[in-house]
Amino acid sequence: MTTTANESTRNGVDTATLFATLDAVKAAPEAAKFQFRADNEWISGTHSRSTIHGFHGVGAERTHEHTFRFDADHPAVLVGRDNGPTPVEYVLHALAACLTAGLANIAAARGVTLTEVHSTVSGDIDLNGLLGLDPDVRNGYQQIKVSFVLRGDDSEKLRKVVEQSRRRSAVLDIITNGAPVYIDVDAG
Amino acid sequence: MTTTANESTRNGVDTATLFATLDAVKAAPEAAKFQFRADNEWISGTHSRSTIHGFHGVGAERTHEHTFRFDADHPAVLVGRDNGPTPVEYVLHALAACLTAGLANIAAARGVTLTEVHSTVSGDIDLNGLLGLDPDVRNGYQQIKVSFVLRGDDSEKLRKVVEQSRRRSAVLDIITNGAPVYIDVDAG
Repeated sequence: MTTTANESTRNGVDTATLFATLDAVKAAPEAAKFQFRADNEWISGTHSRSTIHGFHGVGAERTHEHTFRFDADHPAVLVGRDNGPTPVEYVLHALAACLTAGLANIAAARGVTLTEVHSTVSGDIDLNGLLGLDPDVRNGYQQIKVSFVLRGDDSEKLRKVVEQSRRRSAVLDIITNGAPVYIDVDAG
Repeated sequence: MTTTANESTRNGVDTATLFATLDAVKAAPEAAKFQFRADNEWISGTHSRSTIHGFHGVGAERTHEHTFRFDADHPAVLVGRDNGPTPVEYVLHALAACLTAGLANIAAARGVTLTEVHSTVSGDIDLNGLLGLDPDVRNGYQQIKVSFVLRGDDSEKLRKVVEQSRRRSAVLDIITNGAPVYIDVDAG
C-alpha cells in the first residue's frame, strides 16, 4: 500500500493541522494546559446524569459544539433500574476510545493507513470488595484486557502504532498509574 | 428529619432488595464475580463509538435492558470533529457517577435521606505529556477534583456517607490506585 507523507488527510486525520498544532504547542507550551469537566446530578437510586460541555485549553474557556449528557445506573441484578451503563463500563469505553484516537493520529503522522480498528475491552471485578464483604478484595477492576483487531498497512507497522498509542494514552496512564483525586463536600 | 430503618425504599433505593443482595453474596461469594465489557469501533480520525450491552455476573451471561452506544472524539482545537466528549472527560463522568451511586446506596442503608446530590469533577492535564513534547510531564490527569453539594439529613451524616462512598468506590479505586491493563493485537 502506498503511503506518502505529504497527503494532508489520512485515516480521517488532518495531518497538516496535526503537525501545525504540535508546532504551535512547541512554541507556546502553556497552550497545552487543559482542564476537562463533568457535572453530575443524582436522579434516584443508583441513577445519575452527567453533562459535559465546557473546558479550558489553549489559554481560554471553550465549549464543545454540543452539550453531551450521559446516564449511568446499575442493572437490576445490582439493585438499579438499568437507565444507563455502570460507571465502571464507562471506564472501559474511555480506555478503548483513547487508545483508538491515538492509533489514528499516530498512524496518520507516520503515513500508515488504517482501514479498520475494532477493540473489545473487558474488566474483571469482584464485588465482594466494594460491598465490604472481603477486606482482601479491592473495590475496582482486578484486571482489564483490551483486544484490538486492526486492518490496513502491514502487520508490523500496525503493531508499532498500537505500541506508541499505548505509550501516549492519557486514559491508559490514568488507569495503570493512577491519579490523585481530591474531594470536597458542601453538605447540609 | 425522621429516618426509620424499616422503610423499604429510600433515596430511590430498594433497601430490602439491597440487603437481600448483600445476604445472597455473603452466602455465595462467587456470585459477586463480574466481568464488564465495551466494544469499540473506530469511525474516522479521533472519532470512535463504543457499544455496551453484555456482561457476566451472578454466575451467568447477562445483558443490559438496552444497548448503549457512546461516541468519543476530540474537539476542533485538538484536531478532531467534536462528535463526542474526549475519552478523558468520560473518566470524569464515570468517577462522579460511581461516587454518587455509592452515596445513594450507603445513605439508604443507613437510613439517611438525600434530597439533592450534585457534583462537579475537573481534571487538569498538560498535553505536552501525551504529545511527546516534555518527557517530565505525564500523559494523564495531573489531578482530579470532585466538588459535592449534598442536601438532605444533617451535614455530619451526609459527610460520613461521602466518606464511606469514597472508601467503597470502584472507579475511585481504579483511578487512584491503578489497575493492570493487558493489550493484545490482531494486526494485518
